[in-house]
Amino acid sequence: MSVMLQEIYQQPEAAAVVLEKENASVTALVHELKRRSIQHVIIAARGTSDNAAVYARYLLEIVCGIPVTLAAPSVFTLYGASMQLHHTLVIGISQSGQATDVIQTLSAARAGGALTACITNVPGAPLLEVSDFAMLCRAGEERAVAATKTYTSTLLLIAMLAAHWSNHIGLQQQLQSLPVMYHAMLTLDEQVACCVERYRYMQDCAVLARGVNLATALETALKMTETSYLIAKPYSGADFLHGPIAMVSEGFPVFLFMPNGPTLPGMLELGLKLRERAAEMIVVSRDSSALELARTPIAIPIEVSELLSPLLYIVPGQLWACHLAVARGADPDKPRGLSKVTLTR
Amino acid sequence: MSVMLQEIYQQPEAAAVVLEKENASVTALVHELKRRSIQHVIIAARGTSDNAAVYARYLLEIVCGIPVTLAAPSVFTLYGASMQLHHTLVIGISQSGQATDVIQTLSAARAGGALTACITNVPGAPLLEVSDFAMLCRAGEERAVAATKTYTSTLLLIAMLAAHWSNHIGLQQQLQSLPVMYHAMLTLDEQVACCVERYRYMQDCAVLARGVNLATALETALKMTETSYLIAKPYSGADFLHGPIAMVSEGFPVFLFMPNGPTLPGMLELGLKLRERAAEMIVVSRDSSALELARTPIAIPIEVSELLSPLLYIVPGQLWACHLAVARGADPDKPRGLSKVTLTR
Repeated sequence: MSVMLQEIYQQPEAAAVVLEKENASVTALVHELKRRSIQHVIIAARGTSDNAAVYARYLLEIVCGIPVTLAAPSVFTLYGASMQLHHTLVIGISQSGQATDVIQTLSAARAGGALTACITNVPGAPLLEVSDFAMLCRAGEERAVAATKTYTSTLLLIAMLAAHWSNHIGLQQQLQSLPVMYHAMLTLDEQVACCVERYRYMQDCAVLARGVNLATALETALKMTETSYLIAKPYSGADFLHGPIAMVSEGFPVFLFMPNGPTLPGMLELGLKLRERAAEMIVVSRDSSALELARTPIAIPIEVSELLSPLLYIVPGQLWACHLAVARGADPDKPRGLSKVTLTR
Repeated sequence: MSVMLQEIYQQPEAAAVVLEKENASVTALVHELKRRSIQHVIIAARGTSDNAAVYARYLLEIVCGIPVTLAAPSVFTLYGASMQLHHTLVIGISQSGQATDVIQTLSAARAGGALTACITNVPGAPLLEVSDFAMLCRAGEERAVAATKTYTSTLLLIAMLAAHWSNHIGLQQQLQSLPVMYHAMLTLDEQVACCVERYRYMQDCAVLARGVNLATALETALKMTETSYLIAKPYSGADFLHGPIAMVSEGFPVFLFMPNGPTLPGMLELGLKLRERAAEMIVVSRDSSALELARTPIAIPIEVSELLSPLLYIVPGQLWACHLAVARGADPDKPRGLSKVTLTR
């Protein structure tokens, strides 16, 4: 069993630990956010952490009504910009807590008057030194280069932050069921391991979702690119119609994440357009019309609110990337030329 | 001569008209921005316009010190979020002025107290009805589905806005030379038309840049995907090292935009890493070390400040997409399954 697959299986436990141990740090941060009347959030992150940031931007805007900016670290690190950031929270996300440009961004933001916070898996990491508040992933050491459990722990911390900041009791309650729901999602393992065989020689594909699950599309595509060296292009289903759909010819493989909720009607419409082009669809959904579009349907075994669905819908994406690598003769634990910590000049 | 190529050639004139006729509308907007102490900008756009928005976010943050958020329209259109947006400017960009989700975003932002403005090529378009201020591309009707002249006109309006808002006299002066510099860039046409032959059977490629030219990478990749149906993946050079570089094996084609300026050292380092992997590099630059990395060097014939380079460096990208389509037997004016105006549900 690859380390990556072992770590995918550690997600129920990681979720349980975060729910138990990080409630206090999240509520302490929320207390300060309210005290300082924070009106804007900036998030600095790279790679997988940046995909988590995409989830944060949707969730905080939708649930808390707070506009969220994904930082372009080079604005600070290369161009040396200075910004007035009072009433702004800047969150740095880095699994290792070592991402140099994320640290520099937080440091520059602090100089501009911002409140700073971080999400990291490594207590004592350098990122904590520039952070007024810290939230820990508590996922245990992550050994696989392709991050899985730290990604979902990060999403969980973001969901806890949004739920507490907005006093959204419904979300807070649903979060408690996450460990059980992760166990249910892992029952998809065998099916996914079998499905990937058909895609042994796939050269490229598109991965589509809308709204909060744009993060899921981005992260699934990144996992596939990292472990299987294929060209997986992630898109918002809306942006895909503005040009990129031109790449779809007969048999072109397209992944679609289609949870129930406000994004489903648009995704179904997109699915019909893809069917007209005879695309080969892999659909992750609980909706029967969505699953019927697929050559390879992956039926989600649980009910979850759409706002929290990215925490769970990524699991088949992770399993897919891991098993596909094996099917293609690659080692998911040893991606060609990648290291666990990437430093940006 | 394709319509797309004709429109690429209309860019010097479009720039001259914008500089002459839109100065008044830009300064009127800036007056209001200062009067209302605007502290945050949100931009709503799709497709090519969204790539222009990426340029805007870098430039306004770097030059004006104002944080910029690229809107996720679905936050308003599908999730119905409401935000407090006093002291916020929301800019909608749509060549046609008809993009429904951009219009809805501006309308929702207005309800939240925001000042609204738009950039469009069509006077009288519906987008103007929800905009307190309007800036016009004045590029003449754009007939090719793949937008070119409206993209550069939009970048120019953004640069004028940043230069006036920050009272940056140097930038304001340089902008006056743009029409002449566009003419110089168009002298690359013949060379590009010749170079693309080698890439007749290219199946996929990556397109890389950093900082302000991330917009150039995104737009070049989008043009190639639209007109030539290949999988062109754009990345920030920094993000590329966090995983996606795994896709690069011997001979894998990679475009690099490498203007002089603060992003050059990092891009050169990236170029050396790509050379270790024996990637095939197409380099757009004025720097000799950068050009030496390339199998296909494209030497830029003009000196331009890095902050304005995206307005000009996109020209070889546009020419490349246009000629490559022809070399591959496609018609750049008739992208498969795309229409000029895309409406998002």
